[in-house]
Amino acid sequence: MAETPIRFGILGCAEIARKVSRAIKLSTNATLYAVGSRSIEKASRFASANGFPPSAKIYGSYEAVLDDPDVDAVYVPLPTSLRVRWIVLAAQKKKHVLSEKPVALNVKELDVILEACESNGVQFMDGTMWMHHPRAAKMREFLSDPGRFGVLKSVHSCFTFAADPDFLENDIRVKPDLDALGALGDVGWYCIRAILWAADFELPKSVIALHGSVFNKAGVIVSCGASLCWEDGKVATFHCSFLANLTMNVTFVGTKGTLHLNDFVVPFEENKASFTAGTESWFTELVTGWLAKPSEHTVVTDLPQEALMLKEFSRLVGSIKNNGLKPEKKWPTLSRKTQLVLDAVKASIDGGLVAVEVVS
Amino acid sequence: MAETPIRFGILGCAEIARKVSRAIKLSTNATLYAVGSRSIEKASRFASANGFPPSAKIYGSYEAVLDDPDVDAVYVPLPTSLRVRWIVLAAQKKKHVLSEKPVALNVKELDVILEACESNGVQFMDGTMWMHHPRAAKMREFLSDPGRFGVLKSVHSCFTFAADPDFLENDIRVKPDLDALGALGDVGWYCIRAILWAADFELPKSVIALHGSVFNKAGVIVSCGASLCWEDGKVATFHCSFLANLTMNVTFVGTKGTLHLNDFVVPFEENKASFTAGTESWFTELVTGWLAKPSEHTVVTDLPQEALMLKEFSRLVGSIKNNGLKPEKKWPTLSRKTQLVLDAVKASIDGGLVAVEVVS
Repeated sequence: MAETPIRFGILGCAEIARKVSRAIKLSTNATLYAVGSRSIEKASRFASANGFPPSAKIYGSYEAVLDDPDVDAVYVPLPTSLRVRWIVLAAQKKKHVLSEKPVALNVKELDVILEACESNGVQFMDGTMWMHHPRAAKMREFLSDPGRFGVLKSVHSCFTFAADPDFLENDIRVKPDLDALGALGDVGWYCIRAILWAADFELPKSVIALHGSVFNKAGVIVSCGASLCWEDGKVATFHCSFLANLTMNVTFVGTKGTLHLNDFVVPFEENKASFTAGTESWFTELVTGWLAKPSEHTVVTDLPQEALMLKEFSRLVGSIKNNGLKPEKKWPTLSRKTQLVLDAVKASIDGGLVAVEVVS
Repeated sequence: MAETPIRFGILGCAEIARKVSRAIKLSTNATLYAVGSRSIEKASRFASANGFPPSAKIYGSYEAVLDDPDVDAVYVPLPTSLRVRWIVLAAQKKKHVLSEKPVALNVKELDVILEACESNGVQFMDGTMWMHHPRAAKMREFLSDPGRFGVLKSVHSCFTFAADPDFLENDIRVKPDLDALGALGDVGWYCIRAILWAADFELPKSVIALHGSVFNKAGVIVSCGASLCWEDGKVATFHCSFLANLTMNVTFVGTKGTLHLNDFVVPFEENKASFTAGTESWFTELVTGWLAKPSEHTVVTDLPQEALMLKEFSRLVGSIKNNGLKPEKKWPTLSRKTQLVLDAVKASIDGGLVAVEVVS
């Protein structure tokens, strides 16, 4: 017998919630069940515009969504500064939580969130979509192959986009009381995640921010970067910014192989994504060319990566709800490691580019 | 009336001299005239193996090449520590100089070299071949276009190759008495040059080496990187190493555009080379893909980049020799700026990752 799809409640009507609503619709094991906003009219408009079924519950507050006993899980795209309050409350009401990133303003707040989820037995997952694309699994195969990639030596990731002047002063992502981590929390989160992912989530020994950070008038980071260093000699750098053309590059270099892609966060196209990979690359005689160009690998997908994320999250929630399994610890662990490195970068910037040890 | 091709003498039989000998042969305005080695047998074998004409002069010393009055120009692929001595002597003998890189161990030595060339009225150029590929000119068009690229905001360059254990202990590029700059001088030179090139050779304000430098047993750098920062807020990072798979990536990000290539130093193929470029990149509705993928631009070339370098160098030498023009100052200036940044990176590493101001 087919199990009932996981019933989602959405807290707030953020722009990103439109994409996630579509992803819920595309997932066979999830359903759009409720939306809450401080304005019930706004919630109603959001539901109509985003294909909620006529039966969907429209609420004039976030609390009302959490109080609905039929809501299984909530999606939380609220500003980062509000997240600890609402996720803790959601967990206490036994709602499973899919949270936007950065999950929290710092790891101390994150730990409050994760502790609430764990003690209430609810699943936690952050909204880093690219990890759920089958391309990520295919890249992992390459990076894990001693013959094709060898041992990881360096990573560089770069995620920038060109925000307009209005965004740089007024968007929630640059407001000190809403998303105080600015570009580091928004685009930097993905850069750090890609680096940690390649390192099999082994934490770096230390982190040093790069010089040249840029802040807006309110003192929020709009461009920065950092250098990471591991015990075994691996190194990584990243650059993230709201001040430059949309770029999503990452390069992983191993002793035997190189993997590169130009669209690591949001693939150029929805139904397929590529990367280039080279192994034991070398020159022709007289170094007049390469023996082989890195080869291009394309991975097709029936569902976009955000729908695959929703499907995986809903599968885990279903296992808990229907089969009495425990929440999957992998996802909160990955969020926490990302936040730890993010905190270290912030501490390095605040400390004048000091080296910051990353301690879990 | 066609002018006599520039007659080249080659000092030493380095591996790279084989590629440059072929480039001289391919240039219509240059000719292989002489080769000198400490062993005349070695010089003779080199000449036969690399298509020198039967009339070519085979010498058992570098001095003999410099003393030959018919040699117009010399190519100097000797170890860096020997370069100041031989280039100064070559200049005094009125030979024009094409030098391998890194040109010198530091800018003080470089200035001795450049002063000797200038005071003797000979052309100086370093052997950074990629700048002579028509792809570089095409990329420059893109980077200079305010509509397509805007203002440069960041660069990341990466040049690594996997040296074998024997290389890491015995190659001249890791010998403290021959090429004491190791990977920084060899592969790092190209990374720095690409960054400066993109910045229209405006020097950065300061440089900080990245943590995680690796040294061989003799204390020579085999892997390192740095972060560069300009007065106007531009930033750059690079990573260079002898410890990882062959990788030659560079990404230039401007306010409006992004340019990326994976083979910036030696193009994958000899007769054409590509780069990808995107302008005002943005997402589709709901951020489910990109409105346009960065487009691929391919530039064909009749001659390989090293032959174009030889042709340009020989053209400049011909202008001096036949038309009484002055040496072109651009090339020594670019070498000097590259060396200045390289020195700053080395000083930062030696000083424990301190910020080093770059002063011309």
